[in-house]
Amino acid sequence: MPEKKLRVEFMAMTPDALSLIYAAFRQCYHAGFVADMWPRLLSGEIDPEVQAEFVAKTMESGHDSPIEHVSMTFAAEGISRACSHQIVRHRIASYSQQSQRYVTENDMEYILPPAIARIPEARERFERFMDEVQSAYSDLRQILVDHGRKAKANEDARFVLPQAAETKIVITMNCRSLHHFFHLRCCNRAQWEVRAMADAMLAICKEKLPAIFANGGARCEQLGYCPESPKFACGKYPTREKK
Amino acid sequence: MPEKKLRVEFMAMTPDALSLIYAAFRQCYHAGFVADMWPRLLSGEIDPEVQAEFVAKTMESGHDSPIEHVSMTFAAEGISRACSHQIVRHRIASYSQQSQRYVTENDMEYILPPAIARIPEARERFERFMDEVQSAYSDLRQILVDHGRKAKANEDARFVLPQAAETKIVITMNCRSLHHFFHLRCCNRAQWEVRAMADAMLAICKEKLPAIFANGGARCEQLGYCPESPKFACGKYPTREKK
Amino acid sequence: MPEKKLRVEFMAMTPDALSLIYAAFRQCYHAGFVADMWPRLLSGEIDPEVQAEFVAKTMESGHDSPIEHVSMTFAAEGISRACSHQIVRHRIASYSQQSQRYVTENDMEYILPPAIARIPEARERFERFMDEVQSAYSDLRQILVDHGRKAKANEDARFVLPQAAETKIVITMNCRSLHHFFHLRCCNRAQWEVRAMADAMLAICKEKLPAIFANGGARCEQLGYCPESPKFACGKYPTREKK
Amino acid sequence: MPEKKLRVEFMAMTPDALSLIYAAFRQCYHAGFVADMWPRLLSGEIDPEVQAEFVAKTMESGHDSPIEHVSMTFAAEGISRACSHQIVRHRIASYSQQSQRYVTENDMEYILPPAIARIPEARERFERFMDEVQSAYSDLRQILVDHGRKAKANEDARFVLPQAAETKIVITMNCRSLHHFFHLRCCNRAQWEVRAMADAMLAICKEKLPAIFANGGARCEQLGYCPESPKFACGKYPTREKK
Repeated sequence: MPEKKLRVEFMAMTPDALSLIYAAFRQCYHAGFVADMWPRLLSGEIDPEVQAEFVAKTMESGHDSPIEHVSMTFAAEGISRACSHQIVRHRIASYSQQSQRYVTENDMEYILPPAIARIPEARERFERFMDEVQSAYSDLRQILVDHGRKAKANEDARFVLPQAAETKIVITMNCRSLHHFFHLRCCNRAQWEVRAMADAMLAICKEKLPAIFANGGARCEQLGYCPESPKFACGKYPTREKK
Repeated sequence: MPEKKLRVEFMAMTPDALSLIYAAFRQCYHAGFVADMWPRLLSGEIDPEVQAEFVAKTMESGHDSPIEHVSMTFAAEGISRACSHQIVRHRIASYSQQSQRYVTENDMEYILPPAIARIPEARERFERFMDEVQSAYSDLRQILVDHGRKAKANEDARFVLPQAAETKIVITMNCRSLHHFFHLRCCNRAQWEVRAMADAMLAICKEKLPAIFANGGARCEQLGYCPESPKFACGKYPTREKK
Repeated sequence: MPEKKLRVEFMAMTPDALSLIYAAFRQCYHAGFVADMWPRLLSGEIDPEVQAEFVAKTMESGHDSPIEHVSMTFAAEGISRACSHQIVRHRIASYSQQSQRYVTENDMEYILPPAIARIPEARERFERFMDEVQSAYSDLRQILVDHGRKAKANEDARFVLPQAAETKIVITMNCRSLHHFFHLRCCNRAQWEVRAMADAMLAICKEKLPAIFANGGARCEQLGYCPESPKFACGKYPTREKK
Repeated sequence: MPEKKLRVEFMAMTPDALSLIYAAFRQCYHAGFVADMWPRLLSGEIDPEVQAEFVAKTMESGHDSPIEHVSMTFAAEGISRACSHQIVRHRIASYSQQSQRYVTENDMEYILPPAIARIPEARERFERFMDEVQSAYSDLRQILVDHGRKAKANEDARFVLPQAAETKIVITMNCRSLHHFFHLRCCNRAQWEVRAMADAMLAICKEKLPAIFANGGARCEQLGYCPESPKFACGKYPTREKK
């Protein structure tokens, strides 16, 4: 029953992402057919820097729907059920999550909140409880099996598993939905765990597609001020009123 | 720390629902403007039975998007976090759920799975564990407060709360999304708790809007056969192959 | 073949809208069950002004999802196909639109752009062309009927109908989606017709639900500055840079 | 002002599509982390045929959400505005469409419905009218320019452009949304043009990702019967009642 650390892995991205976004933008304003321009985009005959600049300028004008044509897929482990429950509330996305109905948790791993880890007394209490969880789960599962409920034993025994129980999930979002996710979840007001996850996803996005994600993150990073009400502002940027 | 039972309450429905759906259907096929017809729909000058028949016939032809214009709002309590996590995966819906970050769970209630309730040994083990949960939560919360983490004490202490922990949620879905929800969640393959919740919602829908929900429910109820693969069929209806 | 003017009519709104939004907000932060509070909300025992203030304050903090529980339905006539094509791009909405496949356009009405109406020479050219459209449609439809294509005559003859051809549509959006629609479509950069339609919808929203829509409209109305890139700013508000 | 033929081109697909879908499915039922299995999927160490079989079997059981992780992007030209207006009604998709506000239509191309093309008299009438359209557009655009409305001349002149006017569009849909699109739009009841477009997209999908699209198409292709009401059945498959 060990602690488990967050790990976010890149799985896939729409290929030729910048060119595809550029092509989609161009199709809106251009008399020709982008499929005819496509080979010249892929060959680099149309300079990728020019493509990136065009995309940046058009996005700045408020036209950002073409970035939806590119999606990113991530796999994450080491997140709690408390975290995954928040993530799946983002509706413009696709999820495949490890099922506690199908997977037996005989060796449950868990997420240890940093604030608890830093206080020895809290950590000890937390870890002792995790042992109690494992016992309760194993006991209940066995009782259910003994009473002829083998097929549904996981499904019911999992009711004792904690919010801390580790889960794994595959997530796909398009770039526009990702930006929205980062606006909300990279904010210092977000819960620490979902923020850690959003930060890890953002780091991957910045590496894989800098033309789109260079200034991604909480809203303040793009605005230069904090759009939250003053009472919630973290202080990283001035509030709108101050500005 | 008592057990909590499911309770689903009707909150709101788009008014003049059948007439609105009828009006929307008519607008598709009709030269006139439905806003001009609207008073005669509301006054009953156009017979509600005629409206219901027209709607039924058009839906049968595969055209069901106009039922989206009507939404239903429900409030539910007595559902577990295991259940709410499944529900919020339905993306064409709106949710407002009780937050474990903001609400202190000093008197946590929980959902007791029926299969566990029926086995005295299982029930005793489950209830004993729920006491352990309450102790762990209260202890951890207190330690965090004592260490100056009062503002975030709930947020971190809740990591010990179980999937069984009771939650409350306000749900709004339009009628088309509700039908889809019932197709999946009233099926005997669905987990018992989400099925109980879907059944309670369906009962309300049938009472409030019979013209739309009379034959709502799992897919088999409309098809007359089970569309699942034979190995998962519950036997209520013959499989497609058998038919 | 007369000109047709825009007309947007209110059809329906989720009842007890402010109380429902208040209840949904409260459920997030409150230990109790909002269904138990509901009668006191409806009776006015909990002061509607208090409800409105709570909602306004919480929305200001960036938490706006509960306003999704309330939807508004409108019926519009006197809009062009050019306009309806833009509107249906808003995906968090439901539409029922008059079909040119089913409705015969033997007396087609059309939308006359104001800039054309103001220039007599342009208006005359436009109106003369609309007569040519009607002739072409009627001729083609008749030829198709004469050649045994009656069932599909509308479907094919409509290929000659102009973007100006009048259409009718029933639209339902929830309040959050409406705010987003107004952000984009009440902006002076939006095309004149879709802006006129958005303005008409906004006026209805402000009247029916002022607590939610009092400061609705283009983004600048809430921000106090223009978020567009300076080159597109209309001048009504200073640009972000200027500010 | 020539006629324009439909052309649908493949632009992009999520790479390693089958493996990604397989990985997403496996993550739901598997104790391990799919990111750790990923290299063995890509290397072919886990046989692609085994992957395809697993995916097929799980989809058959009604679990199809993991196919959402893979998206396809197409570019289409030679479609009418009548067609594009239908396509963009599909909401789980992303679109970038050529704008008649930005692109000047001084050499408008158009879609000629096959039923009209087959009747010489109809074709002649149609083509004569298309010349009238071009004159009206050019005249109006010039008048607007002459009256100082250059910036908005396209925007208003396009009101005379017909439904037949050719447009170009970039479309991205995930595989689940594509299946739904094919269910509706490959059906013989669909309008001929959107059906031609859906058929062209389906042919690309079958070629690029046969494991997912082998039996794609109208609902009847999967069901073996026609799910429409008998009065609309095309006869390709028996109706449900007959069966």
